[in-house]
Amino acid sequence: MNKIKVAICGYGNLGKGVEKEISKSEDMEFVAIFTRRNPEQLNIASDVPVVSVSEMRKWVDKVDVMIMCGGSATDLPVQVVEAAEFFNTVDSFDTHAKIPEFFNAVNEVATKSGRTSVISGGWDPGMFSVMRTYADAILSDGKTYTFWGKGVSQGHSDAIRRVQGVKNAVQYTIPIEDAMRRVRSGENPELTIAEKHLRECFVVAEEGADVNQIEEEIKTMPNYFSDYHTEVHFISEEELMANHNKMPHGGFVIHSGKTGENNSQIIEYSLKLDSNPEFTASVLIALARATYRLNSSGQYGAKTVLDIPPAMLSKKTGEELRKELL
Amino acid sequence: MNKIKVAICGYGNLGKGVEKEISKSEDMEFVAIFTRRNPEQLNIASDVPVVSVSEMRKWVDKVDVMIMCGGSATDLPVQVVEAAEFFNTVDSFDTHAKIPEFFNAVNEVATKSGRTSVISGGWDPGMFSVMRTYADAILSDGKTYTFWGKGVSQGHSDAIRRVQGVKNAVQYTIPIEDAMRRVRSGENPELTIAEKHLRECFVVAEEGADVNQIEEEIKTMPNYFSDYHTEVHFISEEELMANHNKMPHGGFVIHSGKTGENNSQIIEYSLKLDSNPEFTASVLIALARATYRLNSSGQYGAKTVLDIPPAMLSKKTGEELRKELL
Repeated sequence: MNKIKVAICGYGNLGKGVEKEISKSEDMEFVAIFTRRNPEQLNIASDVPVVSVSEMRKWVDKVDVMIMCGGSATDLPVQVVEAAEFFNTVDSFDTHAKIPEFFNAVNEVATKSGRTSVISGGWDPGMFSVMRTYADAILSDGKTYTFWGKGVSQGHSDAIRRVQGVKNAVQYTIPIEDAMRRVRSGENPELTIAEKHLRECFVVAEEGADVNQIEEEIKTMPNYFSDYHTEVHFISEEELMANHNKMPHGGFVIHSGKTGENNSQIIEYSLKLDSNPEFTASVLIALARATYRLNSSGQYGAKTVLDIPPAMLSKKTGEELRKELL
Repeated sequence: MNKIKVAICGYGNLGKGVEKEISKSEDMEFVAIFTRRNPEQLNIASDVPVVSVSEMRKWVDKVDVMIMCGGSATDLPVQVVEAAEFFNTVDSFDTHAKIPEFFNAVNEVATKSGRTSVISGGWDPGMFSVMRTYADAILSDGKTYTFWGKGVSQGHSDAIRRVQGVKNAVQYTIPIEDAMRRVRSGENPELTIAEKHLRECFVVAEEGADVNQIEEEIKTMPNYFSDYHTEVHFISEEELMANHNKMPHGGFVIHSGKTGENNSQIIEYSLKLDSNPEFTASVLIALARATYRLNSSGQYGAKTVLDIPPAMLSKKTGEELRKELL
């Protein structure tokens, strides 16, 4: 069997996660890492060539699927559209509000080029989207709730680091147990964002900084913190490095529906992840397999996890799946 | 838009569940109930025609999808193969060991007739199969555990009712908390069947029957009880009717995997169902929509939930799904 030739574009936490996990897919061959940085300065863990993104087009015949590992804010909207002209791609674009626009842009290019681009993989959007869709299709008389955490939010941690006097910070998003309990009871409550999650911040202040001022500034920061119950703890740099250096995350999709004479039916999906980037990478690798198969069967353009049969993500044949997992 | 014309074949608990829930699908029209019994003696809740299965062929042009609601032991293996010659079908065939054989038999007929038959829908097999497949595809270095309950097992309740001196009985399958805790901890334990579930039986004895003898016979019954910790409670018929007349069920699919340097990643899916037949019916209705769409796009033969993109189960368009649920 020909192996699926996979490359990574972007070597941050997510790219490193793909690099670590891809060897578990015996049906794939890891062929290159593309970077915007100077390739010679990249210190990678594997032994594949490191190539400048400016050289990407030369690899058209050598890569079956490009796993796009840039950030959603500025990288992916540009990079995926560019790459889809020459490659099948998979990405984890996660700015929910901009997905329709992103889908259309990628779809136009990939349809023309005869490539397949699976957008917004990962877990939310991604596996959580799959769960919301199944649950809503099965129990349409119902309501879906998504809770995130306990986990580190990079965006919120970055926001704290921009506050004057802050040397370093880690922010945990924590789902509120009482809200989850109410949802699981079938009550179908209306919940404000403050009732669903709280925000816990571990902050290292610069020497001589006014910690009261920092705390006030964090708690009143619009969009990020002002609408939530926020806890701020000041700790030392050593403690931050020792106890908050991992990237755990997770969350819950809970759908509460009714059937018949007021029978309550609860569907719940949850993830408890020690490493957010490694799990996201694992989803993208499985989706890379599906991307290759979609393209091989002539299904071009942009696709999402919702357009892909579960079996297409699996290494197992249909016969094996029916026997072992159905 | 043309509505999807749906009929039910078999009017037991599951058929009644479909009848109750189908009106929530505005894109469907419920057209008939087929039965092996005398149609005139069937007391149905809706106002569709009740038709003898022997008349089924006359309905070829009037039914888009036939939801097969017979039992797995003897009904479905015969009825689905017969129906697939003339109709698209959906069923909840749940004898796991016989699925490959059933799939092949149905596939042969449906491929020839240009029909589409989605087999083994429902929740296990069905939604649980989907979860096992995704989890195994994403975290191949891992292990999947399925727990059932707390819920009523019809098969085990029936087995108790066949014991001499038993007037009526209900059996609950209960997952053992400690086993679930160990799985969720990432320990990946080897569990015997007795370590995963216990069996709780509520039994109404006939007047003058020897309850010790009944209890002994239940607890030592091979296949059903002898390998488990089994609790037997004798209660009155009134208490059984008052407290054990519902058909709740549910369960858990927990996948525990590893990535990177021993990072634990836990995926969990669970169902907590007040009514097992109504939930199963809801899954079959969503799958009926997918069946119709598969057939309309020329995908003939037998299919399973693993072959169907999540979006195909939904009433929403791709655009709506990307905007609202992705």
